[in-house]
Amino acid sequence: MMKKIGVVLSGCGVYDGSEIHEAVLTLLAIDKAGAEAVCMAPDIDQMHVVNHLSGKETGEKRNVLIESARIARGCIKPLPEVTAAQIDALVFPGGFGAAKNLCDFAVKGADCSVQPDVAKLVRAMYEAKKPIGAACISPVLIAGIFKGDETKPSLTIGNDADTAVALEAMGSSHVNCPVKEFTVDSENKIVSTPAYMLGTRITDVAEGIEKMINSVIELT
Amino acid sequence: MMKKIGVVLSGCGVYDGSEIHEAVLTLLAIDKAGAEAVCMAPDIDQMHVVNHLSGKETGEKRNVLIESARIARGCIKPLPEVTAAQIDALVFPGGFGAAKNLCDFAVKGADCSVQPDVAKLVRAMYEAKKPIGAACISPVLIAGIFKGDETKPSLTIGNDADTAVALEAMGSSHVNCPVKEFTVDSENKIVSTPAYMLGTRITDVAEGIEKMINSVIELT
Repeated sequence: MMKKIGVVLSGCGVYDGSEIHEAVLTLLAIDKAGAEAVCMAPDIDQMHVVNHLSGKETGEKRNVLIESARIARGCIKPLPEVTAAQIDALVFPGGFGAAKNLCDFAVKGADCSVQPDVAKLVRAMYEAKKPIGAACISPVLIAGIFKGDETKPSLTIGNDADTAVALEAMGSSHVNCPVKEFTVDSENKIVSTPAYMLGTRITDVAEGIEKMINSVIELT
Repeated sequence: MMKKIGVVLSGCGVYDGSEIHEAVLTLLAIDKAGAEAVCMAPDIDQMHVVNHLSGKETGEKRNVLIESARIARGCIKPLPEVTAAQIDALVFPGGFGAAKNLCDFAVKGADCSVQPDVAKLVRAMYEAKKPIGAACISPVLIAGIFKGDETKPSLTIGNDADTAVALEAMGSSHVNCPVKEFTVDSENKIVSTPAYMLGTRITDVAEGIEKMINSVIELT
C-alpha cells in the first residue's frame, strides 16, 4: 500500500496563499518517495488578495479551496472531509497563506488562533502518533495549535529572529536551520524546514523540502 | 556568465493559465542547470477564468501578467520588455493558458493566431539562432507562428491524435514521444516534451522537462 501524505494548501501564491514552488516541490518529493499526495484546503475566503506584481491588495475576494485547486490540478478535498484515519502523515507547504488563511499569525503574531478544521486535523494526527511536516512560515501554525499545551514542539523557520521569538512565546522551541536542511522533533514526530523563509534558490528549497518529506515518510 | 533562459508564462493554473507544476519544474530545471530564469508574460486579460475545483468558468476577469507573477514570486516582466538580445534561450511551459492566452488554438485549432508580442519574440529568437523549448500543449503556438512558412518545425505534444493533426495542418511535423523524453529539431533549435499532455505523475513530467531544459541549454 502506498503511504498517503495529506498536503494542506492555503491558496495559490506566496503573498496571499500557498507558496507555489514549495507546494509543487512538496508534491514532487512525495511522488518521488513512492507515496501519494492527498491535497486539501479549507473552504473559506482568503484573508485578502494580493497583486503579486505590485505587492498591493486588490480588494477582490477569492476562496482558499478554489484557488488551492489550481496547484492540485483540481484534485483536492475540502479540509474537514479528510480525517487522520485516512492519511499516514500531514504536511504544510509555506507561503503567507499559512499565516493569513490557516491561522492569523500574520496579523496577531503569538496571539494567533488557528482555523478550527486545521487545528482539529493536526491534533488528531498528533494523537494518532502520525508525523507532521511544516515548511517555511507554516511551523507558526503548529506552534499556535500547541500553545499553552504540555506538548512543546521543536521547530525551525530558518533564522528569522522575530518569528523565532514569537514561536517561543507560544511555548515551542526554535532551532536555527539552513535552507537545505530540516529539523526533526522525534518525540512529537514533527519535521520542519525553512524553505523560502531563508532560501534564495529554488534548488536549495527543493533539497530542504525533499529531505523533510523523506523524514516525514520515515516516521510513518 | 550564467545563461539566461526566458520563461513565458500564461497565467496561473492549468485550465486558464500556465500549468503550475510544469512552470515550477521548468524553473527548477533551469536553476539546477546553473542558468538563470527570466520570467515574462503578456500584459493582457486572460481568455477567461476557470474555477479549478468545479471546472466551470467564473465570469471573473484576471490579467495574464499579474496572475503569472504568482508563479514567478513577483519577479516577472511584461513580455515586450524582454528582447532576444537579452536572453540565450526561450521556453514555454504548458497549460491551457498557452492555447488560450498566448494564442487562440483552444478555440480556433489550426486556424489560430498567436499573441503578437509572443510571436515577435519567438521569431527574433529563431532568427538569432537561439533555442526554443516548449512543453505540453505549447508546441501548438510554435506551429502557429511558423504556419505557412518555409520553416517546418518538428514538434511533439505526446501522442494526442487530434492535436497532432492540427500541428501538421499548420505545416509542422509531429513526432510521438513518451512523457519522460523530449524531441529535438536540431535544424531549427526547437525542443519539446509532452509533460501533462501525457503525464500522470509529477516525477515523470519533471524528468521530461529537465531533459528538455538541458537540451535547450546545450543548444545555446
